[in-house]
Amino acid sequence: MRFALPCSGIASALLLGVLASGARAEQAQPAPAPRALGMAELLAATAPADWRVVDPAEMLVMELASGRVVIELAPAFAPVHVANIKQLVRDGYFDGLTINRAQDNFVVQWGDPDEQSPRSLKGARATLDAEFTTRAFTIPFTPLPDADGYAPQVGFSAGMPAARDSAASQAWLAHCYAMVGAGRGNAPESGNGSELYVVIGHAPRQLDRNIALVGRVLQGMEQLAVLPRGSGPLGFYERPEQRVPIRSIRLGADIPHAERPRLEVLRTDRPAFEQLVELRRNRRDEWYQRPAGYIDLCNVPIPVRTAAPSTVN
Amino acid sequence: MRFALPCSGIASALLLGVLASGARAEQAQPAPAPRALGMAELLAATAPADWRVVDPAEMLVMELASGRVVIELAPAFAPVHVANIKQLVRDGYFDGLTINRAQDNFVVQWGDPDEQSPRSLKGARATLDAEFTTRAFTIPFTPLPDADGYAPQVGFSAGMPAARDSAASQAWLAHCYAMVGAGRGNAPESGNGSELYVVIGHAPRQLDRNIALVGRVLQGMEQLAVLPRGSGPLGFYERPEQRVPIRSIRLGADIPHAERPRLEVLRTDRPAFEQLVELRRNRRDEWYQRPAGYIDLCNVPIPVRTAAPSTVN
Repeated sequence: MRFALPCSGIASALLLGVLASGARAEQAQPAPAPRALGMAELLAATAPADWRVVDPAEMLVMELASGRVVIELAPAFAPVHVANIKQLVRDGYFDGLTINRAQDNFVVQWGDPDEQSPRSLKGARATLDAEFTTRAFTIPFTPLPDADGYAPQVGFSAGMPAARDSAASQAWLAHCYAMVGAGRGNAPESGNGSELYVVIGHAPRQLDRNIALVGRVLQGMEQLAVLPRGSGPLGFYERPEQRVPIRSIRLGADIPHAERPRLEVLRTDRPAFEQLVELRRNRRDEWYQRPAGYIDLCNVPIPVRTAAPSTVN
Repeated sequence: MRFALPCSGIASALLLGVLASGARAEQAQPAPAPRALGMAELLAATAPADWRVVDPAEMLVMELASGRVVIELAPAFAPVHVANIKQLVRDGYFDGLTINRAQDNFVVQWGDPDEQSPRSLKGARATLDAEFTTRAFTIPFTPLPDADGYAPQVGFSAGMPAARDSAASQAWLAHCYAMVGAGRGNAPESGNGSELYVVIGHAPRQLDRNIALVGRVLQGMEQLAVLPRGSGPLGFYERPEQRVPIRSIRLGADIPHAERPRLEVLRTDRPAFEQLVELRRNRRDEWYQRPAGYIDLCNVPIPVRTAAPSTVN
C-alpha cells in the first residue's frame, strides 16, 4: 500500500494528464464518478488566449552549473530598479559573481561578496528611489476573493501576487515563494539591484512595503531552493568556496533566439484563472475530506509552461 | 557597500547576541538610540521557566548521512498515530528505508518505497483512526491575536502551531513549515505513520483537518529542505539511487543519555512568547520602515535551543 499526499504547486500543475489519474498504484484504481474538475483538466482546457507569452525584454536568465533560472521582471511596480538591473545585466555585472546567502525558510541571495574591492556598477546607479509601493491606478489588478491580514486587498497583477490599499492609492508586490527583490541597507534608498534575493520558504509578508520586489522566478526555483544553507549570520556562507558561482545573467532579449527560454504564464485576469483560484480555494480532489473554503494569496499557483514554437516572439 | 535583508526564522533567533549587533559591515556602524528590543535580546532576557525541556519519550531522532533531524511528537493531537509511530520506531521499521519524495515548495516524504514487497509493520497497526482534529477542551491553547483565513482561531499548543473551532469543540495542528504528518491514501483511515512527510515550503494550510499531523521538526530542517527535488509525479524520485538513505529513526528515550539530543522549546503559554509574537507582528528593527501590524500563524517562530546540561532529564 502506498500513501501519497496530493499534489501542490506550479510544477505539479504542469504535469498535464498525470496528476489527474494519479501516479501511485493506489490511485490507479477506478475512481468513483462524478469527479470534480482537477487542475490538470483545467489547464488542458485553457485557450491560447488564456496564456501570456513572457516578454524576453523583461526576462532575466541566470546560468548556474545546475541549469537555468528564469526570472520575469515587474517594471510596472519597480521601473527604476528594473531599469538599473537591466543596465547591470547588460554590463555583465553578475557574470562570475556568486550566490552568497541561503537562509533556511527565508531567502537565497546573490551579488558581489567582496566588500573590500567591490565590482564597479559601471553605467548603473548606486542608489535608487525606494519603490516599495506604486500608484494603484497605474496597474491592472484582479482581486482574490479572500481576505488577507497584511493588506486591505490582495490579488494578482500581470501574473504576480500583489496587494493594494485603494484608500491610499497604493499597490505593491507580495513576498510569496519565488518572488525576487532588491536587497538594501537600512536606508530606504540604499538598494540598487546589484544584490538580489528570492523567497525560498514560507512567505515573509512582513517585508511587503519595506523593500522593492522586482520580479518572480518562473523556472528553476528547485535549483535555488536546494542550495546548502549558510552557517553564518543571516545564512551567509562563511567560506568563499561555499559560494555558488553564477556563470552569467542575461536579458532574455539578448540571448540568441534559438537559445532563449520560451515561456508562457497563465493570465491572471481571465476566467480560466478565476476557475483555478476557486479550484484551489475548495479542493475537490478525491483525496480531500474538507475543502478549506479559503486560500491565502501565496498558496495560489500561477502556472507557467513552455510555449509552443508558433507562439514564440 | 553591503545589502542585507533582516533576519528571520528560528535559526536566526537563536544566534543570540549576533543579530542584534548585526554581522554585516554596514550594520556595524553605531546605531541611533533608543533602539527597540530585538529577538536576540528578548531571548537572552528569558527565564529558565520560559523554556520547556523536550521529553525524550516524545522525540524522534532521524539519522541521515548529513546529520540528525530531531522531531517532537504531538500525542495530544494524534495519540493513536503517535503510539503507532513509536511502535514502528521501536521495531526498527524506518532503519535502512529512504526519503523518497521531495516536491518543491511542498513536502519531503519518507517511508518504504517498495510497493511489491513492502516491509512488515510488525507490531504496528495498518490503519488508524483519522485524527484530523481532536476535542478542543482537551488541549492547552494560547490564541494568536490576529485573524486567520483557514480557521476561526489560531494559536499555539505546547509549542505547536494550532487552530480551533470552539463552536465545533475541535482543535487541530496547522500545516506550517517543519510540521510533520502521516501520509494517507484516499480513505481517511488509511494512514498509519509508516509514511511521514514534512512541510518544506509555504504553509499548505489547505491540508489542515484533512490529514493527521503528528509533530514538528525542532532541529535539522536545513537537511531536509535542501534535498534535490524529485522529477517524478508529486516529486517522487524516479530512480532508486536518488532516494536518500535513513540510517535509523530512534525514540529519544531509547538513545543513550550521552548521545541524546537535549533541546528546549520556548514555552508558548507565557509572557515571553507573547512578547515575541508582538515583536514579530510589528518589526521595530532599524531596517523596517513599516511594521506590518499583523502576523500569520506560520510566520511566528517557535524558538528551540540546546538545553544546558543541568536541565537535561
